[in-house]
Amino acid sequence: MINDIHRAAYATIEIRAAAGDYPVFVGPGLLSRLPVVVSTYAPSERLAVISDDQVGPIHGAAAAEALVEVGHDVTFLTFPEGEGSKTRKSWSMLTDEMLNAGLGRDCTVVAVGGGVTTDLAGFVAATYLRGVPVVQVPTSTLAMIDASVGGKTGIDVRAGKNLVGAFHAPCAVIADTALLTTLDARNRAEGLVEAVKHGAILSEAHFDMIAHSAEALIGADPDTNAACVAASVRLKADVVARDEFEGGLRQVLNFGHTIGHAIEAAAEYEIGHGRAVAFGMIAEARIGERLGVTEVGTTDRLMAALMSLTDGTSLDVDPSEALRFLKADKKVRAGRARYVLLRRIGEVAHDDGWAHDVDDATARVAVTEVLSGW
Amino acid sequence: MINDIHRAAYATIEIRAAAGDYPVFVGPGLLSRLPVVVSTYAPSERLAVISDDQVGPIHGAAAAEALVEVGHDVTFLTFPEGEGSKTRKSWSMLTDEMLNAGLGRDCTVVAVGGGVTTDLAGFVAATYLRGVPVVQVPTSTLAMIDASVGGKTGIDVRAGKNLVGAFHAPCAVIADTALLTTLDARNRAEGLVEAVKHGAILSEAHFDMIAHSAEALIGADPDTNAACVAASVRLKADVVARDEFEGGLRQVLNFGHTIGHAIEAAAEYEIGHGRAVAFGMIAEARIGERLGVTEVGTTDRLMAALMSLTDGTSLDVDPSEALRFLKADKKVRAGRARYVLLRRIGEVAHDDGWAHDVDDATARVAVTEVLSGW
Repeated sequence: MINDIHRAAYATIEIRAAAGDYPVFVGPGLLSRLPVVVSTYAPSERLAVISDDQVGPIHGAAAAEALVEVGHDVTFLTFPEGEGSKTRKSWSMLTDEMLNAGLGRDCTVVAVGGGVTTDLAGFVAATYLRGVPVVQVPTSTLAMIDASVGGKTGIDVRAGKNLVGAFHAPCAVIADTALLTTLDARNRAEGLVEAVKHGAILSEAHFDMIAHSAEALIGADPDTNAACVAASVRLKADVVARDEFEGGLRQVLNFGHTIGHAIEAAAEYEIGHGRAVAFGMIAEARIGERLGVTEVGTTDRLMAALMSLTDGTSLDVDPSEALRFLKADKKVRAGRARYVLLRRIGEVAHDDGWAHDVDDATARVAVTEVLSGW
Repeated sequence: MINDIHRAAYATIEIRAAAGDYPVFVGPGLLSRLPVVVSTYAPSERLAVISDDQVGPIHGAAAAEALVEVGHDVTFLTFPEGEGSKTRKSWSMLTDEMLNAGLGRDCTVVAVGGGVTTDLAGFVAATYLRGVPVVQVPTSTLAMIDASVGGKTGIDVRAGKNLVGAFHAPCAVIADTALLTTLDARNRAEGLVEAVKHGAILSEAHFDMIAHSAEALIGADPDTNAACVAASVRLKADVVARDEFEGGLRQVLNFGHTIGHAIEAAAEYEIGHGRAVAFGMIAEARIGERLGVTEVGTTDRLMAALMSLTDGTSLDVDPSEALRFLKADKKVRAGRARYVLLRRIGEVAHDDGWAHDVDDATARVAVTEVLSGW
């Protein structure tokens, strides 16, 4: 049974985690294999399928139906689509709905959706009766290559994104690249920004592959997307395996995110995460070039790759506001290095640690500059 | 430095946990060693000391002061005393106060208080920025022998107690038995009910020791209490080491708790946990005797030991209400065995699993009977 999915998958990547290894199955058409994945990796009779109200009626319902068909007792729960749902309130409501349905410690959560769903449902699973298993079924490019690997779960609070959460590794992940066809092109393109990041910090070959296949990727070609997702998952898995709880190396995954998060927060989350990270990567690459750490021309290559994925025109964001968030972030992450700088495309600078201190004036210039467009 | 505390301690018990082993230091006067424990086991510059508003002004403030004196940056937070604070709301408020104080991933939480504090502050630590270290400083008998060992953290929700939470092992535990003098006698006595439970399920010698030293224990004699706490912690630690995440053996710790929790809930938490568990143990011992599983006379020995610790007069609780909670609990814990039954004092019956099914009629008789007093 389970061998079928290995055969059907474009690739299977084994992720090493303290709580137990788990597979990420990548390839078009794999959602239909959900029942056998559940029975192999999380053999629970009772399941909670969690989706948002956009993905729910399509893929969530399909997943639930397939599980009911093979005899599972399924509680199907949805929440309003969007980052605005990644709150303590949604977490409480989903938890209470599961309790009201009488789901016990022997249940499993199946999260079907984008990054908001995988993070939120993951945190519900992490804290439900002190933790129940979760199977992640990411349906967006971003969630497939990023949110579903590494076990991070969490919610946003007033002080910032993802500040409350837990590490809770899934039992298995199914990344069905055929599902990407139901996503709009802008969403697919912006999701690829994180894949570009994986290339920029870890593999020039992957970086070039995305730049050259952008059209097919954005066009939702299932096989090209499977190749891209599999490569990104492999790169990220390798980093996470070496530093699961973010003590050192894992910081490299934050490239573009220090400034990206600040821009996202200053824009009151009205711009997409991918777009914000694109702005962040360009600003941080420029900082690196200016400090003489990053090879000259790296920012240009980044811009060329990102141009086809997201909109680089100026953002209506007050630089001072973004800098205020940078400062708050710095305070919260006190004692930890802040900026990941590239050596060149495919390689991070790490002469003294994986991340660098950058003075406020340099950061201010880079933020102001990038906000005016690239 | 740290050798001093080993010398000063009545006993040091090493607890094995997946996330890392940790010591429980037991003995009078150990609170003064908190700074060296923090610097050895959780070397953070910034600390959040969390207490309730009863323990806070006494032991919490003393702990915070000692830590400030050696140069720590301490954020001192309190919440209203009582089980009513073990809520999502208190958890949110404490988290937000830590965020507002700018505490980063490199901070450590120091929980100073009873079981409510160790559970609540532990859950705050478990989910703050996806988890920061916690040092537990239990100040009640119950928290010393029970809540601080095993890494369980959690909060209550409408559907029941401890239904939301996480396993989050502390870095170190300090059980300073001199602090018990500030507790009222009733509280000390009821806390010992869990120690009686440890004896009942695991060690007749420990059971007898408590029965014979009840007066000194309730009288807050620091050395007798240190001996009792150390023995209970050892017994519990041994169970938890063999089954950290409650897959099997750890269930034995639930003796008395199936019916105890139901009575506690039906009484709307107006009776203490210890008292409720005493009623639960007696009811479950009677069930065992009736089913021919438990040695005849066991319930009598239990009653004799518990009599000096808590009030056995009838409870103004509707048996049907308690049975309703039993049923709800059964539903939530579907698929898991329900009643731990003794073979005799010091030994659990485990012919087919660590817990047993009991028919509703037998449970109803036992609950009704025990509620009328013992």
